[in-house]
Amino acid sequence: MSDQPTIADPESWSCPLPLRDTERIVLGHGGGGVLSEELIENLFVPAFGGRSGAARDSVSLAVDAGRIAFTTDSYVVQPLFFPGGSIGELAVNGTVNDLACSGAMPLALSAGFILEEGLELLVLGRVAQTMGAAARKAGVRIETGDTKVVERGSADQLFINTSGIGVIPDGVDVHPERIHPGDHVIVSGPVGEHGVAILSVREGIDFGSTVETDSAALCFLVQDALAAGDVHALRDPTRGGVVAAVTELARGAGVGIELDESAIPVPEAVASACGFLGLDPLQIANEGKMIAVVAPEHSDAVVAAMRARPEGAGATVIGRAVDDHHGMVVGRTAFGTTRVIERDLGEQLPRIC
Amino acid sequence: MSDQPTIADPESWSCPLPLRDTERIVLGHGGGGVLSEELIENLFVPAFGGRSGAARDSVSLAVDAGRIAFTTDSYVVQPLFFPGGSIGELAVNGTVNDLACSGAMPLALSAGFILEEGLELLVLGRVAQTMGAAARKAGVRIETGDTKVVERGSADQLFINTSGIGVIPDGVDVHPERIHPGDHVIVSGPVGEHGVAILSVREGIDFGSTVETDSAALCFLVQDALAAGDVHALRDPTRGGVVAAVTELARGAGVGIELDESAIPVPEAVASACGFLGLDPLQIANEGKMIAVVAPEHSDAVVAAMRARPEGAGATVIGRAVDDHHGMVVGRTAFGTTRVIERDLGEQLPRIC
Repeated sequence: MSDQPTIADPESWSCPLPLRDTERIVLGHGGGGVLSEELIENLFVPAFGGRSGAARDSVSLAVDAGRIAFTTDSYVVQPLFFPGGSIGELAVNGTVNDLACSGAMPLALSAGFILEEGLELLVLGRVAQTMGAAARKAGVRIETGDTKVVERGSADQLFINTSGIGVIPDGVDVHPERIHPGDHVIVSGPVGEHGVAILSVREGIDFGSTVETDSAALCFLVQDALAAGDVHALRDPTRGGVVAAVTELARGAGVGIELDESAIPVPEAVASACGFLGLDPLQIANEGKMIAVVAPEHSDAVVAAMRARPEGAGATVIGRAVDDHHGMVVGRTAFGTTRVIERDLGEQLPRIC
Repeated sequence: MSDQPTIADPESWSCPLPLRDTERIVLGHGGGGVLSEELIENLFVPAFGGRSGAARDSVSLAVDAGRIAFTTDSYVVQPLFFPGGSIGELAVNGTVNDLACSGAMPLALSAGFILEEGLELLVLGRVAQTMGAAARKAGVRIETGDTKVVERGSADQLFINTSGIGVIPDGVDVHPERIHPGDHVIVSGPVGEHGVAILSVREGIDFGSTVETDSAALCFLVQDALAAGDVHALRDPTRGGVVAAVTELARGAGVGIELDESAIPVPEAVASACGFLGLDPLQIANEGKMIAVVAPEHSDAVVAAMRARPEGAGATVIGRAVDDHHGMVVGRTAFGTTRVIERDLGEQLPRIC
C-alpha cells in the first residue's frame, strides 16, 4: 500500500485560524455576511496573494482590441490531495490549459467554491494555497470569486469551479479546421500519469513506484511552440485521454488521424498499472500534456521548442493527419497493422479531475 | 399549504430523450467521452439555442480596446424550482446582475454543471431551458460550458456555476469610492420577495398569497439609469439583502449611509411572512433588484428612468450617504429615531441562491 499523502503540517499554515473559534466550515460562511467576509479576508486573500484575489464580486480588466478566450471547468476530483498535487493545482492548471488550447495567454481567473458544511478550514486553506501558488507559476491572478456552503451530506468536501479569460495574440489562429492531411501530431510528453496517480491513492494500490500527477500550466509551452512554427490546432488530453483529444481534433477537422502507437510515450509504471487494471493508457486523463497538430515542415522546430522547456521535455511526434476514414482515429501497431481506436462511452475513472 | 411548483409537462420537452435508454444522469455523462457529447448535443445545445452554446471547451470573443468586467457565482438553491423561477434563471440573472453592478453589458456567459448521478434528465433539461430563455432575455449567450457528474449522495441534485464577461462602456465609472456624503440611495423596487418565495415552498408555509421570486436581468435597467444621471455606485442586494449591500457600499466608500426605513418598499405578503418567521425583510435575498447611489441632483432623473422599465417600476429613494458613522448603516424609523443596522453573521436562510 502506498502512503496516503497528508495535508501539509498545520505549522505551515500562516492564516489566523481558527476563525471565530471554529475549525470547520459552517453554513454561515456561504451567507454573504460577516462570516463570509472573514473567510475571504483571512483565508482566500492571503492564499491568493493579496487584496485583488477573490475578494470582489467582479473585477474590471483593461483589454486591447483583439480576441479574448473564455473558458470554464469544475473540479470534483477525489481524493483532494494525491501524489504530486491537489484539486487546487488542477483547478488552476486545467483552466489555464484550456485557454492555452486557444493559443491564449491567461489574463484572469475566477474561483467558485461549493463547500460542505463541516469541512476543515485547514483543508480549505491548503487547497487555496496550492491554487495561489499554481496561479503565480502560470503568471495569472485569481481576480474574483464566490463561496457557497451546503449542508453536511449535500456535497463531497469541496468542489471548485474556475473560469478564465485569456488574450489571444495577434496572428495566432489555432482551430481544428486548420488541420490538413499530412500534418504531424505531437504530444508534449509521456501520458497517463495523472489518472494512475489518482487511482493509486484512491484504491490504495501499490504499483511498485509512485506515479505522480503531471499537472502543470502549459501556457508558456504553447507560446514557445507557436513561436517556433505553424501550429494548426491544440488540445489538452484530459478526461478521455489522448484518444478523446485526438478524436475531437479529427472530427473537428474532418480528417482521419493515424497514431503510431509505439511512438506514444507511456511511462513504465503507468503501463504496468494499466496492464494490471485492464485500462488503456491512451484513454487516461493527463493534466499537464498538450497535443499539437503542426504543419509537417515545422514539426521538428516545434518539437525542439517544446523540448527546451521542462514541461515539454518528452515532446515527440506520435502520428499524422490523413485524408482517409474522416473523423476517426486509427492506431498503427508495432507490427504494422492498424486498428480503429474508439473513445470510451464514459470515462474509465470517474472524478479524475 | 401552498402547492409545490412542478416541472413543466414532459410534453413540452423537445429534446430527443431518453438518451441511450436512460432517463437519468450516469457517471459517464461527466466522463468527457461519447455520453458527454450526447448530453451536450441533445440537451444543452438545443436548450441554449444553437451550436455555440456550451458545446466548446472555450470560446474566442472579439473585443474593442477598453474595460471588461469578469465575475463568477455558483448556485446551490433548493428546491430547484420555486414560485416564479428556478435555479436556471437565477444562474443567468445573478451573474448578469453582477456584471451590471460594474456598469457592464454582458458579452458572454459560461455554465459549469455538477450533477448528481441519478438526476432525471428531464429536470436537467428543464433547468437548461430556463437558462437559455433567461440568457436570450438578457441579450447574452451561454458560450462555453463544462459538466461533471459525482456519485449518488455526493451532491444534492445539481449545482451550477456561471461566470460572465461584460463590456464596460467608455465613460462609465461606478465604484463605491465615488460615493460622496449627500448622495441619494435608490432601490429599484420592493424587497424580500426572492427569499420569501424560496422559504414558502421549502417549508411548505402558506402566507395567504403566493410570493414569487423577483429574479430578473438588470443590465438594461442599469444602462438606462447610467444614461439618465451620474450613478456613483451599484450593488445588487442578493444574499444578506439590502442591509448587506448597503453596508458594503458604506464600507467601500468610507461614508455612513442613513436609510429611511419607512421609505423602503416591502410587499405586504413579504412583511407578514417575515413577521411570522421573525425575519428582517431588509436582510432577505433579492434576485432582481438594484441599489444605486446617485448624485443628489440626478436622483429624480435616475428614478424616473428606472420607473420607465418594468423591472424598475417600483424605484424609489430610500436613504442618503452621510459624513458620519463611517462604514455603518443607520436606520431612521417612522418615529424619527435612529438605530444602527448590523449585518447578520451568516445568512438567515441557507441555500437561497
